[in-house]
Amino acid sequence: MSRGPVTRFKVEVLDGERTSRREDVVVTEEPLELRLEWPGRPAEPLVVTMRTPGSDFELAAGFCLGEGFAVRPDAIRTVAYCTDVKLTREQQFNTVTVTFDGPPDREPPQRYGVTSAACGVCGQQSLDELAERDYAPVDPVQVPVDVVRRLPDLLREAQPTFGRTGGLHAAGLFTATGDRVIVKEDVGRHNAVDKVVGWTVLNQQTRSGLVLAVSGRAGYEIVQKAVAAGLGMIVAVGAPSSLAVDLARRFGVTLVGFTRPDRCVVYAAPERVLHG
Amino acid sequence: MSRGPVTRFKVEVLDGERTSRREDVVVTEEPLELRLEWPGRPAEPLVVTMRTPGSDFELAAGFCLGEGFAVRPDAIRTVAYCTDVKLTREQQFNTVTVTFDGPPDREPPQRYGVTSAACGVCGQQSLDELAERDYAPVDPVQVPVDVVRRLPDLLREAQPTFGRTGGLHAAGLFTATGDRVIVKEDVGRHNAVDKVVGWTVLNQQTRSGLVLAVSGRAGYEIVQKAVAAGLGMIVAVGAPSSLAVDLARRFGVTLVGFTRPDRCVVYAAPERVLHG
Repeated sequence: MSRGPVTRFKVEVLDGERTSRREDVVVTEEPLELRLEWPGRPAEPLVVTMRTPGSDFELAAGFCLGEGFAVRPDAIRTVAYCTDVKLTREQQFNTVTVTFDGPPDREPPQRYGVTSAACGVCGQQSLDELAERDYAPVDPVQVPVDVVRRLPDLLREAQPTFGRTGGLHAAGLFTATGDRVIVKEDVGRHNAVDKVVGWTVLNQQTRSGLVLAVSGRAGYEIVQKAVAAGLGMIVAVGAPSSLAVDLARRFGVTLVGFTRPDRCVVYAAPERVLHG
Repeated sequence: MSRGPVTRFKVEVLDGERTSRREDVVVTEEPLELRLEWPGRPAEPLVVTMRTPGSDFELAAGFCLGEGFAVRPDAIRTVAYCTDVKLTREQQFNTVTVTFDGPPDREPPQRYGVTSAACGVCGQQSLDELAERDYAPVDPVQVPVDVVRRLPDLLREAQPTFGRTGGLHAAGLFTATGDRVIVKEDVGRHNAVDKVVGWTVLNQQTRSGLVLAVSGRAGYEIVQKAVAAGLGMIVAVGAPSSLAVDLARRFGVTLVGFTRPDRCVVYAAPERVLHG
């Protein structure tokens, strides 16, 4: 059985002149192997990502949407832990198989390979292939600025593990009035986004009218995942990267960074942040 | 020509009731394609990583050491930007070719694929292959606790870009007395580590007696890269992950987290942090 979201270790604390030994709680990081299968093709490993155990099926479904394999809402038939008897019990809970109802909406690249980071550029063979895929237009959600600036606090309030370990990213979906729809945590920022998006997929929830809030910085892969999920606004606690701004502007995603209760910076599509 | 480490954008700042437009500076994130070649084998794309332009050759060399392709100090003959005339000028500066003096010390996995994250588990086909490679023992460096606790400040003082963008990770190598050897920044934590390690490779500098300091959290990939580089101590400003602690303990790497001027927590091999 996989470990939970936190793991206990004996540590040494060097505090001023004092040394003490105590038990400390650390965020769990474990590899997750994702396998894809569809009628006529047996399950094959696609990617290994380092993730915090929990919401593994959501992570798998969100990854498949982000990478374009499961764009149709019902493209995924089942998601399951592995029953491969050659694997140890721990490995079984670190292996997830996604079964499609037919050939995936996008053929997984042959040299997809395996990586620690479930990200928006996985499977690209070279720079030439970083050119965008075809995406549907994003949702034109509009959000009042006071809601935007409260989202980091609302996200933090919904994070059960963060306060205990200091090592977790969170991602959440909120309505334009600031109501929480779903929040997930992970040691990897992109995994947390996959988990919330995958939750909407597995629970057949609309993403229309929702804002994506992320606890840290916003890099390329966060915006790519938002675009693939049709989300029209990203509110980040931290800084964006240049490629994140470029991509958000190209696809009309509102991108907000350095978000505080009284202040925020809008890097792309500012017209959908409503204010006096 | 590739953009520099920061990129300027016009942004909208929503400060209290006031809205202002101004120019903001954002950390640059761009894809870098790494190609490997050796006598008898033409250059082939291995990986695409999202990185902050600058110290690209160091990043390439550090990645090749971390992944086990260039373990011998002189295994790399040259590192160069691409001269492929089919690429645009911008693409040429986002493509780096590493030429080995012969077959690499470890054969690049066939399904290596391409990823946004230059990380310690790239190229692993499945969980089975996450088992460790053979590493030389790490350097048994010993560092006084007061030096350890000063490293985050010393790292920050050497970061030219961070203060301007809030979006950059830093990694640095320091002596056991706190003297700075090299500091590099990147939008990706693992890239910053590759850059400092690669700097030692390209400049034939010893890593013996040095400590690796990182500005953020310490995940699996940071410890993996330290082990591959033979570094015996990692000092992180933030939290470690469970897999980072596991790996550090297995290889005897001293792992320090939550490092402050008056306090730090030692998660692995505490005997090499010297104190009263």
